Amino acid sequence: MAGFSQRMLALGTASSEIREAFAFAQQRIAQVGPQNVEDFSLGNPSVPAPQAVRDAALALFQDLDPVRLHGYTPAQGDAAVRAALAADLNRRFHTNYSGDALYLTCGAAGALCCVLSALGCPGDEFLTFAPYFPEYQVFVESAEGTLVPVPARLEDFQMDLEALAQAITPKTKAVLINTPNNPTGVVYPQEDLRRLGLLLQARSAAYGHTIYLISDEPYREICFAAPPAWVPDCYPHTIVCYSYSKSLSLPGQRLGYILIPPELEDASLLYAAVCGAGRALGYVCAPSLFQFVVAKCAGITADLQLYKENRDLLLHGLREMGYSCAQPDGAFYLFPRTPEADARAFCARARALDLILVPGDSFGCGGHVRISYCVPPEQIQRALPKFRQLV
Amino acid sequence: MAGFSQRMLALGTASSEIREAFAFAQQRIAQVGPQNVEDFSLGNPSVPAPQAVRDAALALFQDLDPVRLHGYTPAQGDAAVRAALAADLNRRFHTNYSGDALYLTCGAAGALCCVLSALGCPGDEFLTFAPYFPEYQVFVESAEGTLVPVPARLEDFQMDLEALAQAITPKTKAVLINTPNNPTGVVYPQEDLRRLGLLLQARSAAYGHTIYLISDEPYREICFAAPPAWVPDCYPHTIVCYSYSKSLSLPGQRLGYILIPPELEDASLLYAAVCGAGRALGYVCAPSLFQFVVAKCAGITADLQLYKENRDLLLHGLREMGYSCAQPDGAFYLFPRTPEADARAFCARARALDLILVPGDSFGCGGHVRISYCVPPEQIQRALPKFRQLV
Repeated sequence: MAGFSQRMLALGTASSEIREAFAFAQQRIAQVGPQNVEDFSLGNPSVPAPQAVRDAALALFQDLDPVRLHGYTPAQGDAAVRAALAADLNRRFHTNYSGDALYLTCGAAGALCCVLSALGCPGDEFLTFAPYFPEYQVFVESAEGTLVPVPARLEDFQMDLEALAQAITPKTKAVLINTPNNPTGVVYPQEDLRRLGLLLQARSAAYGHTIYLISDEPYREICFAAPPAWVPDCYPHTIVCYSYSKSLSLPGQRLGYILIPPELEDASLLYAAVCGAGRALGYVCAPSLFQFVVAKCAGITADLQLYKENRDLLLHGLREMGYSCAQPDGAFYLFPRTPEADARAFCARARALDLILVPGDSFGCGGHVRISYCVPPEQIQRALPKFRQLV
Repeated sequence: MAGFSQRMLALGTASSEIREAFAFAQQRIAQVGPQNVEDFSLGNPSVPAPQAVRDAALALFQDLDPVRLHGYTPAQGDAAVRAALAADLNRRFHTNYSGDALYLTCGAAGALCCVLSALGCPGDEFLTFAPYFPEYQVFVESAEGTLVPVPARLEDFQMDLEALAQAITPKTKAVLINTPNNPTGVVYPQEDLRRLGLLLQARSAAYGHTIYLISDEPYREICFAAPPAWVPDCYPHTIVCYSYSKSLSLPGQRLGYILIPPELEDASLLYAAVCGAGRALGYVCAPSLFQFVVAKCAGITADLQLYKENRDLLLHGLREMGYSCAQPDGAFYLFPRTPEADARAFCARARALDLILVPGDSFGCGGHVRISYCVPPEQIQRALPKFRQLV
């Protein structure tokens, strides 16, 4: 056996069910044509970036000195960009942040890795509700912590705060939430977030150290019912991790941020530790062109209405057939219960019809299946009869 | 004390002498004007990106479907981009790589972090020649390894292979070289690289495990004498880390690669471990727009001739005044000996003249000073009388 890092080797060779499903879909598309395969495996935005992104980029190439456009920014991001993004948050959420509360990152994954590495001490526990985005486990382990999944309420995939209260221990460093949620599409109501805040406040006081809340919000703008709550309003010790991958359909450009509100306990120390983590992980700075682009596009999104139309079409269709599905008011995922208890067996039956889905087991919750509906609506129309055949 | 990662806190609050010098320069510029301060602290390219970069980007915005232009690429990078970059290497270095030998990264820092994390097991030693880029220590420690600096030959800052032979132990996982070198500007001749290869081959055989060579080459294209050697020609177990930050003047866009030649021992396993490290560190993929841009610009560079003119002007001037300086045939740094043994004292004297330099101590080599001459030539002209005053 080569003397390489066994952890990295395992991570690099482990077959992800999501990637494997996607690869199978690609193979079938090559064999039988794209009109005969319905691939719902990946969370890759299907609506194009808005025209404003192109306009902003072209203007920057036109007007900005290339040495500045392509130059290093400070590690935490260009100061004017951070000020513009803070002003946009203040406008939308009635907050009062300065740009110095923001640290720009290579996407939400970079944001999570820097926050977890800044917070994490050996032995720390990070709690999250299952089902959950599988990379959480990887990122928490990179930060020398342990991910402790707590089952969400199976009937609606909302937070089970009683179960969370049971799982919090003196080792709990932070709770990590994701709303709108991947893989369930569920949005947490403000009232529940406030109850979560009170719970964390009480347990922080009981243990004599702050339990932080990490709010992973790449889907914040994809919300079909009421606008989402601003999580730091519900608990002051909230760190927000954000990405423009979904709101502006820019997943490949790797641009996001960490927000550390000044109200957070030891905010300036945590900000410094995040800067240290950015150095330790080799990030240097977030990509400069798209720093400038997202500042010019503050408050703008891609045409996210298309996801709501897909959601309605698919949810209505599946429920009519008798599928049971928690109310998905955001993101671009459905997580219905499978007719049989074994979700992998269901996915195999679906695959035999060239309908490509990912079993919930990948997200720490069997008996369900994830459907990524960031696809053309015609694909949903073609898929519905296959879902009917499977129920 | 906040319960954060003590390592990240220390990295985030430690004052880097380079950054501190740069901040001081900015402050003095604000006070006395840019025409009165000569800042040689940062290695930020001063020549603009070539027109080809702008042309390529504009064409991509024009012609490529935005869902593809801005979408996730595979973690290792777009397949066509990797094939194009491999073809360019093959053309220039008479090699025969496929795109599958390349893993695209967020710059050379991301490349080094992924390679070191893939290779590193607790207790591993990584050897490098001092003076060296100070982040090497940070990156090696992130990979649970120990950086062991070996002094280069003080008279010319070439590799001291006898000292290296003494320092290699059974714990040595890899040797990390940087040619053209930051901070000395020295280029290693092919003959020395071949001798290094023979040494590593002999010691690998003696210990029964391969000692890898990591060649960090962000300055490969900034080479004023003979073209640089192709390091894998000198030792088959060479991993190349590259960046477009300097060759195309794109440091802010974060684009580079790792090359793992197929001849390397356990090449495919190491490639898998690099993929695992990319996941563990949260990289997802290198920024997609600039993946496509560098593929279109393969073989093109910024006008790097300007650096040679700066080198000649400054080197000639300093030597004429009596400064002693190893022959800097590449990169954009000089590393002359300071008149006094205490380089920090020399830098303080220089600073009193608003001449901003970084003491060699920051690079693990006192008694010298680093001059980053990626600046307008007028700044060098203005600085020469100050250097004369200090000698």
